[in-house]
Amino acid sequence: MKKLLIVTTGGTIDKNYFDDMSDYQIGEPMIGQILQQMQVGFEFEVRQLMRKDSLHITDADRYTIRAEIAASDLSHILITHGTDSMVKTALLLADIPDKTMVLTGALNPARFRDSDAVFNIGCAVGALQALQPGVWIAMNGCIWDPRKVRKNREQNRFESTLTTG
Amino acid sequence: MKKLLIVTTGGTIDKNYFDDMSDYQIGEPMIGQILQQMQVGFEFEVRQLMRKDSLHITDADRYTIRAEIAASDLSHILITHGTDSMVKTALLLADIPDKTMVLTGALNPARFRDSDAVFNIGCAVGALQALQPGVWIAMNGCIWDPRKVRKNREQNRFESTLTTG
Amino acid sequence: MKKLLIVTTGGTIDKNYFDDMSDYQIGEPMIGQILQQMQVGFEFEVRQLMRKDSLHITDADRYTIRAEIAASDLSHILITHGTDSMVKTALLLADIPDKTMVLTGALNPARFRDSDAVFNIGCAVGALQALQPGVWIAMNGCIWDPRKVRKNREQNRFESTLTTG
Amino acid sequence: MKKLLIVTTGGTIDKNYFDDMSDYQIGEPMIGQILQQMQVGFEFEVRQLMRKDSLHITDADRYTIRAEIAASDLSHILITHGTDSMVKTALLLADIPDKTMVLTGALNPARFRDSDAVFNIGCAVGALQALQPGVWIAMNGCIWDPRKVRKNREQNRFESTLTTG
Repeated sequence: MKKLLIVTTGGTIDKNYFDDMSDYQIGEPMIGQILQQMQVGFEFEVRQLMRKDSLHITDADRYTIRAEIAASDLSHILITHGTDSMVKTALLLADIPDKTMVLTGALNPARFRDSDAVFNIGCAVGALQALQPGVWIAMNGCIWDPRKVRKNREQNRFESTLTTG
Repeated sequence: MKKLLIVTTGGTIDKNYFDDMSDYQIGEPMIGQILQQMQVGFEFEVRQLMRKDSLHITDADRYTIRAEIAASDLSHILITHGTDSMVKTALLLADIPDKTMVLTGALNPARFRDSDAVFNIGCAVGALQALQPGVWIAMNGCIWDPRKVRKNREQNRFESTLTTG
Repeated sequence: MKKLLIVTTGGTIDKNYFDDMSDYQIGEPMIGQILQQMQVGFEFEVRQLMRKDSLHITDADRYTIRAEIAASDLSHILITHGTDSMVKTALLLADIPDKTMVLTGALNPARFRDSDAVFNIGCAVGALQALQPGVWIAMNGCIWDPRKVRKNREQNRFESTLTTG
Repeated sequence: MKKLLIVTTGGTIDKNYFDDMSDYQIGEPMIGQILQQMQVGFEFEVRQLMRKDSLHITDADRYTIRAEIAASDLSHILITHGTDSMVKTALLLADIPDKTMVLTGALNPARFRDSDAVFNIGCAVGALQALQPGVWIAMNGCIWDPRKVRKNREQNRFESTLTTG
C-alpha cells in the first residue's frame, strides 16, 4: 500500500476510563501504536486534528477534516472518528476526487479488553488497499457506502438504510 | 458482504498453551468467536478442515482445501492457515474461477495478549469486500499477490519478493 | 481457605463502557467469573448488595454492608468497593468480631486491558488466608490498616497517612 | 511491606510463544513490569537466577536458589518458578530462618490473555505481608504448606495431599 494518511478526530475508540472527576475523556490516539504493534508493512503518518466525541463535532470541524484531507498529497486516507456522527462527516468527504478514504471507529474503547477497535482498524486497512477512490465506512466488519448506512443507536450497530418494508 | 465461507486449517493463530505437555498445540479455531464478539454484520459459516501447523501441511492437504473451496456455492472465502506454507497453499487456489479468496493467519496465537490475529482477520474481512476475484494473502496489514510475497523467517514477517538488488 | 463470602457493592472495578450513553456504568460484578477463570481451590459465594460508585454510597448503605457481613456464618469476607470511600466503609466494619475482612477494588475497570482488578483481587485473596481477624484494605499491592491509609486523588493511589512532616 | 526480594527461575509464567523453530522458550521475566504496571506501593528488587522449565531444574539449581535467598538481607521473598517441581524447591527452603518466602508461578504464560500469572502474583504479594516466617506456595488462589500440597498433573491444578480415602 502507498503511504497511508491517518487522520484522528477522537471518539470512543480513544476514550480512557473516566469518572465524574475526570477532565480528560479522550486520550492519546491509539491507532499509531496499534499499527506499530501489528508490524504493518506500509508507511503511515498520523495527524491528530481534534479529540472530540462525535456528538460534539461541528460542521466547522467537519470542514477542517475535509480541508486536511483535500490538501494532502497522499491518496489513501484512514479517518478515526466517533460513531455517532461518522456518517455525516463521511458524506462531506464524498466529492474529494482521487482519494480512497475509509472512516472507522469503535463502539468500545481500544483500551478495553474486548474492544472492536483493532478489528475495525484492520478492516479499514484491508479495504483501503482494494477499494476504488471514494469515501467508505468500515464498521461491524462491513464496508459501507455512507449514503446507505446509519448507526442504529438502540442496537448499537451500523446497518443498511435499505431495509425493505 | 455476501455470506462468507471460512475455512480453518490450523496454524499459530489457533495455538493454545498446554501446561501438561509444556508445549503449544492447535486448539479450537478462534475465528468464529472473534467475529461473533465483533458483531459483524454479515453471515458466515466456519468449516474446520484440519488442525495442522503449516510446516506439516502436505500437498494432499492442499488439494483437500482446494476441493472444499471449489465445491462451495459461496463466492467469498477466508482461509485461516499457518504462516509458514501459506503462500504455497495460496498458489494452488489461484486458478479457481469466480471466487474472491483471502488467506490469513497470525504470527502469535489469538489467545496471546498482543496477537496480530484479530487485526489480520479484520484486514482479510475488509479486503474481501473490495477485491476482485482471485486469491490474496493478508499479513502485516498488507494485501499481497501470492506470486509476489514470501515469509521472511529471520524477521518473522511477510515481504515482497520484488526487492531490487 | 474456608468458604469465602464475597460482597460486591459496585465501584470502578465493575464499570463497563456504554456507547449509547457515552459513559461508564457499573455492570455485572466481575469477581465471580475472575475467580472461576483462575480455578481457585476454595469455595466462595457472591452477594451483590448494590451497584454504586462509592462517591454515592451513603451511611445507610454502609450499615447495609455491615449488617450483611455481621449476620453471615462465614468468617472470611472479601468486599469489592469503589476506591473513593473504601476507607470510610472499612472503618465501619472494624468492630465486627471474629471475622477477617478485606476490602479491595480497582482504579481501572476489570474490563480494561491493563486493569489492576485481577491483581488486587489476588492480593486480597492471598492476604485473607494469613491475616488475623479484623478489617483491612488491599490496594496498590499493599495490605493496609484502614485507620492509617487514604486515597490520594491527585496521584490516584492509596498511601499511608503516617507521612512525617 | 518491607522491600521485597523477587527471585525468578523461569517456568511457564515467563514463556513466550515458541514453535519448532524457536530456540528461546522462556523470555524476560514478566513480574517486574507487572508490578510496575500495578503501581505497587512497595520497593522490590528482581534477581533473575535462571530461565528453566522446572522439569529441568536440578538439585544444584535448587541449592543456588537457596543460597541466594539465605544470603540476602531482605526478609520477604517472592520466588517465581515452574509449577512442575515448585514443591520440591519449596521444601529445600523450609529451614531458612527469619524469612517469609512464597513461591508462585502460572499454569499459562503471563503473555496469554487469560493467564493466572497476575492473579497468582497478587496472591503471593498479599500473603507475604501477613504470613509468619517460613516457606509457602501460592497457587490456585490458595496459600499452601509445601509439605501438604502437590501438583495434580491430570487436572493441571494444585491440591492438598491430605485427601481422606
